[in-house]
Amino acid sequence: MSDLLRPETTIDLADGAAALLEVLRAAPPLTHCITNAVVTGFTANVLLALGAAPAMVDIVDEAGMFAGVASGLLINLGTPTREQRAASREAVAGATASGTPWVLDPVAIGALPVRTALAHELVEQRPTAVRGNASEILALAGLSAGGRGVDSTDSTEAAADAAVSLARRTGAVVAVSGPIDFITDGARTLRVANGHELLTRVTGGGCALGAVMAAFLGAAGATEHDDLTAVAAAGLVYTVAAERAAATSSGPGSFAVALLDALAAVTAEDIRAAARVEVVAL
Amino acid sequence: MSDLLRPETTIDLADGAAALLEVLRAAPPLTHCITNAVVTGFTANVLLALGAAPAMVDIVDEAGMFAGVASGLLINLGTPTREQRAASREAVAGATASGTPWVLDPVAIGALPVRTALAHELVEQRPTAVRGNASEILALAGLSAGGRGVDSTDSTEAAADAAVSLARRTGAVVAVSGPIDFITDGARTLRVANGHELLTRVTGGGCALGAVMAAFLGAAGATEHDDLTAVAAAGLVYTVAAERAAATSSGPGSFAVALLDALAAVTAEDIRAAARVEVVAL
Amino acid sequence: MSDLLRPETTIDLADGAAALLEVLRAAPPLTHCITNAVVTGFTANVLLALGAAPAMVDIVDEAGMFAGVASGLLINLGTPTREQRAASREAVAGATASGTPWVLDPVAIGALPVRTALAHELVEQRPTAVRGNASEILALAGLSAGGRGVDSTDSTEAAADAAVSLARRTGAVVAVSGPIDFITDGARTLRVANGHELLTRVTGGGCALGAVMAAFLGAAGATEHDDLTAVAAAGLVYTVAAERAAATSSGPGSFAVALLDALAAVTAEDIRAAARVEVVAL
Repeated sequence: MSDLLRPETTIDLADGAAALLEVLRAAPPLTHCITNAVVTGFTANVLLALGAAPAMVDIVDEAGMFAGVASGLLINLGTPTREQRAASREAVAGATASGTPWVLDPVAIGALPVRTALAHELVEQRPTAVRGNASEILALAGLSAGGRGVDSTDSTEAAADAAVSLARRTGAVVAVSGPIDFITDGARTLRVANGHELLTRVTGGGCALGAVMAAFLGAAGATEHDDLTAVAAAGLVYTVAAERAAATSSGPGSFAVALLDALAAVTAEDIRAAARVEVVAL
Repeated sequence: MSDLLRPETTIDLADGAAALLEVLRAAPPLTHCITNAVVTGFTANVLLALGAAPAMVDIVDEAGMFAGVASGLLINLGTPTREQRAASREAVAGATASGTPWVLDPVAIGALPVRTALAHELVEQRPTAVRGNASEILALAGLSAGGRGVDSTDSTEAAADAAVSLARRTGAVVAVSGPIDFITDGARTLRVANGHELLTRVTGGGCALGAVMAAFLGAAGATEHDDLTAVAAAGLVYTVAAERAAATSSGPGSFAVALLDALAAVTAEDIRAAARVEVVAL
Repeated sequence: MSDLLRPETTIDLADGAAALLEVLRAAPPLTHCITNAVVTGFTANVLLALGAAPAMVDIVDEAGMFAGVASGLLINLGTPTREQRAASREAVAGATASGTPWVLDPVAIGALPVRTALAHELVEQRPTAVRGNASEILALAGLSAGGRGVDSTDSTEAAADAAVSLARRTGAVVAVSGPIDFITDGARTLRVANGHELLTRVTGGGCALGAVMAAFLGAAGATEHDDLTAVAAAGLVYTVAAERAAATSSGPGSFAVALLDALAAVTAEDIRAAARVEVVAL
């Protein structure tokens, strides 16, 4: 990866991520998640392990007010029941009214009409960040019909232009997950090369990252760090923990367990030492 | 903890818990759970590991009749969808009609209006036991606006008077979970000092305990043990297992796995040896 | 188990299972699951570990079209909410129209009226396979009132005639899970003696097998292997992995983790070496 590294900016970003990790643990951000039924337990465990305070409030007449008091909000469209769709709209309105940063994860949009329509509606409400795989980002940008279920059929690089365009149009930081993560605010672009293939063998490996982004955006609210740094910090901490977990795992089951242990154990110094990030001005 | 111990009563309680654990395993109580989407899998696994027979029946037109044949019932309000609210009312009616003991876990009540209203409604139906953290018990007793999401912002001691008052008013055994658990039937009060901080780093660490209480109440039905002993037995067995799990864990992920192994392995003799309980007459 | 073995046919079946495992991994079948809230995460993890591509699409107006493009479909009735019931009907119609093989898992039918009615309705739509415990198969065949919650109160042998009768009437391969699995298409019957008791101590231990059957039916679609072989292959691979997992586990928690690792690691050669199958012509 040495050709990917630009030492100065890498150090800045790694320092920012390390600092935000310590901020998060010192004052656990209340992280409101409306997420899919498949990963809700794993997502809460990821946030708890990291040091954040998860709250999975997806009930109509509760989600809106709760988003107003939370530090960060995740809207994940993986299993959008009728009640969750209404709660998501309510939560986004609450977050918008009170300035709570929020993340949109448009799981498996493209061919599936209910979530696709909802994703297009919600992205117009100006999420703070959008996280998806390449096919989902292309579909949200209107440039593809999406992937194969939850799997991307497009490469991260293929979605780079769509991500920049989506970021400029909506004001969101857009993160494209893949072997190398691509994160952009429309003016600056980062590539994060940390991570491990086993993350794709655990259900919620990507979905939980969206929640971690919401937590880091919440933690960053009381600091001088901007949204791009917060989103990148989430990605860095999560993928560095994944690398450490993979080193002690013997398959996807033990990896998921070790990831939770690693998220609890990873330190700011570990992040500084392991970060593999490239920063590119656009 | 030596100043907490009163040897005679501790021995009685530890003996009761040990005996009930063997009763439970000899005739697994059918434990009906209506619980939140975040922890339903973990809760079922906790019950299976312990030796009980979980059944997560939260469907309208099934929950009422099932509560009538179950040995114990848990109503946990963590993600109370419209259908779950209706099923909960139905199940409580079924349990009441047939004498099935039931546990109310008023997760995150206080600021969140839908579950708060439901908790106040259901507690009037006279649950056999109520389990919550300090903020939830204070809110259910009408003495506070609740905590911060699922986290307590009040100490267990601060909720002691509210727990006693709630127990006297409703007839329920009230259990306040915290570093030291506080359990009262309004006439007698127990403090259980077993447990481990890692239980707060696993989603469902508290919610599953409510299900274990329902299982022990079910097991106690065929014995001479009273509800206070059954609830305390659940707490003791669960927290002694947690201590054993923590001793072999390297973080919250491995702890959750080890807790299931420990719940399956813990013996009546282990409970007698490890119990740290104080009994106080009021 | 030597009296169970008939070497020639065992070798054929074990070879078929081994071949299908390699087909599945070479072209991961998109496996559409509508399953219960308790096990949805574990089920997706089982499929991912094995090498299949899970997609838990249980939303009305999405489930039908998705079943049409999926390689295999599971309908599991463990927590059939109103929305899931509608999505299940839609998915079965989509699968039928496009020839997608599908598996019906009639969890806990018998005494519980909502799921029982739905199971009887759906089985008339001619599922490719039905998987259940003995009490569930007896109830679906109209010969018993079902078990105790999710537990069977009948032995596998007691359900053998019902399974054959159900297979002949509906055209489905019928699999009865138990200490020895019984699998029949109404003309031929197999007994699979692999497996481990710890599978009954993990929630979703049986439910996930239904999803594995859907994945193997999907994989078999592009081969000359018939439905009976695909269903038996799923059972063999799953239970051989369970045996390997049990050998390294110290309880139900570590077993569930090790099962995922074993599903990822198990090879075609392992299946050939470990299979304990009996084939009986009817």
